Order: sequence, then C-alpha cells, then structure tokens
Amino acid sequence: QIDQLLDPLHPADIAHLIEQVDASERRDLLNVWNGIDGDILSELDDGIREEIIENLAPSQLAEAVRDLESDDVVDLVEYLDEEQQEAVLGALEGADRVVVEKALAYPEESAGRHMQVEVVQAPEHWTVGQMIDYLRSEDVELPDQFYHVILVDARIKPVAYVTLGRVLSARRDTPLRDIAEESFRTFNIEDPVGDVAHAFNHYHLISAPVVDNDDRLVGVITIDDAMILLDEEHEEDILRLAGVGEGSLTDTVIETTKQRMPWLAVNLVTAVLASGVIGLFEDAISAIVALAVLMPIVASMGGNAGTQSLTVAVRAIATRALTGSNVWRVIRRELLVGAVNGVLFAVVLGIFGFAWFGSPMLGVVLAAAMIINLVVAGLAGTGIPVILEKLGIDPALASGAFVTTMTDVVGFFAFLGLASVVLL
Amino acid sequence: QIDQLLDPLHPADIAHLIEQVDASERRDLLNVWNGIDGDILSELDDGIREEIIENLAPSQLAEAVRDLESDDVVDLVEYLDEEQQEAVLGALEGADRVVVEKALAYPEESAGRHMQVEVVQAPEHWTVGQMIDYLRSEDVELPDQFYHVILVDARIKPVAYVTLGRVLSARRDTPLRDIAEESFRTFNIEDPVGDVAHAFNHYHLISAPVVDNDDRLVGVITIDDAMILLDEEHEEDILRLAGVGEGSLTDTVIETTKQRMPWLAVNLVTAVLASGVIGLFEDAISAIVALAVLMPIVASMGGNAGTQSLTVAVRAIATRALTGSNVWRVIRRELLVGAVNGVLFAVVLGIFGFAWFGSPMLGVVLAAAMIINLVVAGLAGTGIPVILEKLGIDPALASGAFVTTMTDVVGFFAFLGLASVVLL
Ligand SMILES: [Mg+2]
Ligand SMILES: [Mg+2]
Ligand SMILES: [Mg+2]
Ligand SMILES: [Mg+2]
Ligand SMILES: [Mg+2]
Ligand SMILES: [Mg+2]
Ligand SMILES: [Mg+2]
Ligand SMILES: [Mg+2]
Ligand SMILES: [Mg+2]
Ligand SMILES: [Mg+2]
Ligand SMILES: [Mg+2]
Ligand SMILES: [Mg+2]
Ligand SMILES: [Mg+2]
Repeated sequence: QIDQLLDPLHPADIAHLIEQVDASERRDLLNVWNGIDGDILSELDDGIREEIIENLAPSQLAEAVRDLESDDVVDLVEYLDEEQQEAVLGALEGADRVVVEKALAYPEESAGRHMQVEVVQAPEHWTVGQMIDYLRSEDVELPDQFYHVILVDARIKPVAYVTLGRVLSARRDTPLRDIAEESFRTFNIEDPVGDVAHAFNHYHLISAPVVDNDDRLVGVITIDDAMILLDEEHEEDILRLAGVGEGSLTDTVIETTKQRMPWLAVNLVTAVLASGVIGLFEDAISAIVALAVLMPIVASMGGNAGTQSLTVAVRAIATRALTGSNVWRVIRRELLVGAVNGVLFAVVLGIFGFAWFGSPMLGVVLAAAMIINLVVAGLAGTGIPVILEKLGIDPALASGAFVTTMTDVVGFFAFLGLASVVLL
Repeated sequence: QIDQLLDPLHPADIAHLIEQVDASERRDLLNVWNGIDGDILSELDDGIREEIIENLAPSQLAEAVRDLESDDVVDLVEYLDEEQQEAVLGALEGADRVVVEKALAYPEESAGRHMQVEVVQAPEHWTVGQMIDYLRSEDVELPDQFYHVILVDARIKPVAYVTLGRVLSARRDTPLRDIAEESFRTFNIEDPVGDVAHAFNHYHLISAPVVDNDDRLVGVITIDDAMILLDEEHEEDILRLAGVGEGSLTDTVIETTKQRMPWLAVNLVTAVLASGVIGLFEDAISAIVALAVLMPIVASMGGNAGTQSLTVAVRAIATRALTGSNVWRVIRRELLVGAVNGVLFAVVLGIFGFAWFGSPMLGVVLAAAMIINLVVAGLAGTGIPVILEKLGIDPALASGAFVTTMTDVVGFFAFLGLASVVLL
C-alpha cells in the first residue's frame, strides 16, 4: 500500500517527504517500507542520510549505491562518518571503489571531487560514422546521461568537443573536428568548485572536461551538477551574510544553537564596544535624556544603509562584477549615494527631532550625525568586503559584523559627540 | 588591433569588459570597434544594453539579433523602452517577429516568456532510424543546441522524451518509445519561472517541454536558461533581504539612491517607533543613565538572532523545505534555540552588566530582557516570513523590517520596563 504511494514518485520527492516528517514518523515509515535506493539517499540532507544509513542492512546499502555514477557516490559518502563511509565503499566493486577513493583524495571543494569519471571520448581524427558505430557497439558502457563527445589527442589531452545534436545531424563521413563547438573550456582537478559553478553560469556551459596536472582528461562536470554547486554557493553566501553557519531545517535544537552561537557572541562583543562609546557620554545623556531616545535612530539608519552597500558588494564580488578596475568607481558611487540619502533623511529626521523635543539645535545635530553615518555606511559597506576578499577571507562571512559595528560606533559617537559640543 | 584583442574572447567576457570600463571609455571603445553582435548584447546589463542599442545603426542592430534563438531575443528586448523594442523587432523576419511578440504577450515571469520555440519533436511511433534520417535531412532547421527529442502524440501533446545519447547508442529499428526516459515533466506557459527554476534544480532536468492550455507542445526550456533563472531568483532574494531593490553595479548614483531610499524610509519609521518606546521610560533613564548605555545591547542581540531565524526561514520557503507539515516543528525549534542562546548570553551579559555598573539587580534585568528578546526573535524570525508567504507577499522583501522592529521594540520595552519595576 505504501509502496503504491511512493513508487511513482521521483527520488527527490521521496527524499523531501522523508525530510518533512519528524524522527519518530520517519522510523515508522522505514519499518514498513524498504524502498530506499541510491538515488533517494543522494537527495537526502546530510543529517537524515546518516540516520538512515545507520539503520540500513549492509546488503541493502550495497545494492543502493551500486547503480550510482561515481560523482554521486562521492557526494553521498564525503560527509559520512568513517565507519559508514567504509560500509558504503565496501559495497562497491574494486574498480568503482578505487575511483571513489581517488576522488575523495582531492580537496573538498575542488573540481576533482565533483567530476564524474564516466566520460565519452573519441580520438580527434574520428568521423561521425566511427563515432556512431562505437556508441552502438555492445561492449561499450555509456554513462546514464551525456550530451557531448570529448575529442582527445594521442596523449589523451582534450582538444575540442562535439554536441550529440551535431553528431546526429551530420553525414557519416564528416570528421568530428569539423563539427566541434567553437568555444571549449576545461577545468583542472584542483579548480575550486565556486569557480566552476561561476564559469558554467557565465559561459552557459553544458558539460566541461576535467584534466589532471599533465593535461590529461580524467573526468567531466555536467551542468546539472554545476547548477547544484551554484545553488550551494548562493546558500552559503546568504546564510553567512546573516551570521548563520551551515545548517538545514532538519538539524536539531542543539545543532542549531551551536551554529548560531558564534556570530551572536561576535555581535555581543561589538555591541558592548558600541555601549562603551555611549558610556563616554553619560553626562550628556543625564543632562538631556532626549539624546538616549534619539541615538538608536542614527545607528539603525547607518546599519541599514551599510547592509545595503555590503550586500551589493558581496554579490558583485561573487559574480566577479566588482574587480580592481572598477572598485574606486563603485566606492565613489556608494559614498555619493550615502551622502544624498544622508542629506534627504537628515532633513526629515532633523525636522522631526526639532518637532518632538522643541530644540532646533537638537534637530541640527541629529541631521549632521545622520549624514556622517550614512557616508561612513557607504564607505565601510563597500570597502570592508573588498579588503576581506583581498585578505583571502570570504566577505560574506565577516563583513556584516564589521560594518554594523562601524555604523553603531560612528553613529553613537557622531550624535552624542556633536550634542556634547553643541548643546551642553 | 582592438579586433585582434577582442575577437578570441567569449561574448560573455566582452560584455563583462564593456561593463567594467566607465561611460566615456565605453564610448571611445565603441567608436573604434564595431564588433557588437547579438550574443554580446544578450550578455550585457540592462542599463548598458540600452545605452549601446541607442548608438547602434539600425542595420547593425538587425544583423546582431537575426542569429539569436527566440528566447534570447525576448530576453534582449523585454526591458527595452518601446522605441528600441520596435527597432529590434523590426529587424526580425516576419515569422521570427510573430514568435517574439507572442512570447512578450505572456506574463513577465512566466515559462512562456522564457521558453524557446525551436523544438526538436517526433511522432511517438517513430523508430531511431526514422529519427536519424529526419535529423540528417537537409531541409530541417535544427536549434543551435539540443539534448533531447520530445515525443508527441497526434494532438501534439508531449508524451515522453528521449536523450540524444540513447538515440545514438540504440539500433536503427528500436522504437523511440522504448528508449524514452522514465521521468518526464512538462510546464505550462503560465507557470512562474521561480517554480520552473526550482523544478530543474530539484529534479535535475536538462530540458523540459512547455505546453499551452490545450496541452499542446509550444516550446522548450533548457537547463542553461533555468540556471540563469535560478541565479536571478537568488539574486532577488539576497538583495531583497538587505532592503536593496533591483539594481546592478553599473547603475548611476541617482538610480542607486532611488533604489535604496524606500527601505531606508521604512527603517526610519520603525526606528522612530522604537524611539517612542524609549521615550516612555525617560524618567527611568534620567534616574539610571546606565540603562541608556546598555539598552542597545539587548536590541542588537535580538536583531541578530531574529535575522538568523528569518534568513533560514526565507531560504527554506524558497527551497520548499518549509511547508505546512513541518512549520510548527520549525517554529518550536527556533523558540527553543532562542531560549537556549538567550540563557547562555543572559548569563554572560548579566555578569558583565553587574561588573560594569556594580548593581546585581541591573545584571538580572539585563539577563531577563535578553532571554525574552531572543525568544521573541526566534518566534518573529520564523513566524513573520511564514505569514507573509501565506498572504502572497514575498517574505524576502518585507520580513527584515518587521522582525527588527519587533526585536527593537521588545528589546527596549522589556529591558527598560523591567528596570523601571525592579530598580526604581
Ligand atoms: Mg533535498
Ligand atoms: Mg546523475
Ligand atoms: Mg556535495
Ligand atoms: Mg552527476
Ligand atoms: Mg561550497
Ligand atoms: Mg562563496
Ligand atoms: Mg541594528
Ligand atoms: Mg553579464
Ligand atoms: Mg542560446
Ligand atoms: Mg531575463
Ligand atoms: Mg536559451
Ligand atoms: Mg525574478
Ligand atoms: Mg523569490
């Protein structure tokens, strides 16, 4: 009955379903249904995948992974604990196991780790007819899906590639070289996956060969996997910008608390720093309590404007739109935007402050502090991620804390400092 | 000379180069180099594309767009002003023009707007041999790139699809039906592109047919375009979360100021609201100025924790991981995470407040306010995006302002309110 329900579903949907229910429902489901296969395992979140592999009989696990392509096995086992990894690898045939172990030896976020070794290649001098005969011959094992044939020279160096559409529509005696694609890009096994994902998106690649350090063809990365990599890069950026570590919706309370704590701790330190700035002006606040009422407005506007600049800069760095050749132009633009918005909101807020507390000079101080803080926000919001990137630190990871500390400190200092000078 | 430099570059790289230089350098470049073609235009940012089309001779424009696939022409013209759109459409041959105008009539973010009409289809009863003969015949015009053949029934309804790899590796007498892919998905012309992009990523689709309201095949969406759509969805989310409207690095100061202003204005209103809460406790602050020094810490920690919960929730809604069936579990988790982190940081901050100002009760008030605010942050950070989504509002767009207003107001109110009761 449950088989009838689940069988017609796509593995990704079954995985989604397994993730949606809670742990006890999941146990019940897996007690009455043993249809878990490699495709479903591949689709599951890391934590739940471990939980399920834990409860799978070795024979069932062996059967599940045997049909997967090499890159999918690697993706499946790379974050398993050692014992589980050993169990999965043990289920593979000798040659498959060697391939997976080799891929696992490449760095975590490298092209080598994410390529599949099942490649369709041909000598560069072949014709369409030879190619078709080769593909039709019984003893060739082809990958599940492939869209190109990679042409290689005598030293197995990829030199061009041909789409299957052209192979199919050309005459048998056409040399493959004559119908090769104009644009052709290879990756090195050590290239970071972020660069690979960006290149697929930038050059609209469908698949691309991966070569080793001797330029020999060792694998291929396909666009479906590149799309997943791009999605993961985005996920990483968006979560890092918010100060959330890695994590998924299926993590437990304890795991989630641990992920969130570090950036809350950093924020506590920076918030205390900003408080220290306020502490410098205790006398002023005692004298004019309106200062305490209004000071968060200046800081908050700065934090908002800084986050705007910062997010644009982080995105622009990720898409390679912000480079050495336009960085000064962008910083100048952000400064000007900060100044223009600063003046606009300074007028509004100045009038408001005057109206609320009846002191024209308080309005002027508020306006001046607003302008200063929005200009600083534009500068810090663009400059800090650029500097972090130069230092080799992911700007998505750390910029937020720096920028809002800056706008809090400058906001409080400018407002309370000016007030002390002008109003006391 | 400049031709020699630019000619070997990929159109995406030439576009990138044109975007990197400033407006006057760009004019100089385009005065001495007239190699702009349709592929380069397609790659350019909207603003710069308009600027360049403005300066292109009609004949050059005509030649540029004539080689593009229908979806690329649509993408090129959809945001041009009417006059420029007319110029490009006028450059197309009659039939091509009709296709593009039809696509432009579909809603902006629909599958119909983004599909290409160049499709390779075959009657479902054909064999591999018939297919190959058809593809080889001289009078068939094939798309630049295609990876599948779509099988259709007598009413042109798509019923299955076959990868070219299988066509190539099967014997000529094999019926296409026998080598069709197991899993097969079609989109309706009206499906939102966000759903299309998500489905490509979720189901690892390479291409998918698009049908009209009578289920007739009218086009196809390919993964390279789906990858761009997914990238755009992410870009939109990340910019909206930061309160930045649409916008690119090549926008001017005026354009950028206008994009950023609305959310700064919203933030001003909410910051004033939070100030109003502080204003309620002017007497308490006058009596104990330490309250003014410490109150931003509570608000800031709440804002941070709220943003963490919020970002996780917005991402989970975008990836369809957060649904009706697990929303209560997720909200409960976020509440507990808020409580646990609240207690931890309450202890740290309580001791710190005591040490700084020498008042144990001040420490207790600080700690209590921290716990309250982090629990509220968890609740608001998850609940608000879920409610907005239910109301049909993009949670990425509006949640941030609501959540931080909530944590500011609750943070100030809890801390100052408790302080008034306990310390005065
Ligand atoms: Mg999944
Ligand atoms: Mg696969
Ligand atoms: Mg992975
Ligand atoms: Mg793969
Ligand atoms: Mg990564
Ligand atoms: Mg990154
Ligand atoms: Mg803040
Ligand atoms: Mg571009
Ligand atoms: Mg194209
Ligand atoms: Mg578009
Ligand atoms: Mg296309
Ligand atoms: Mg969109
Ligand atoms: Mg969206």
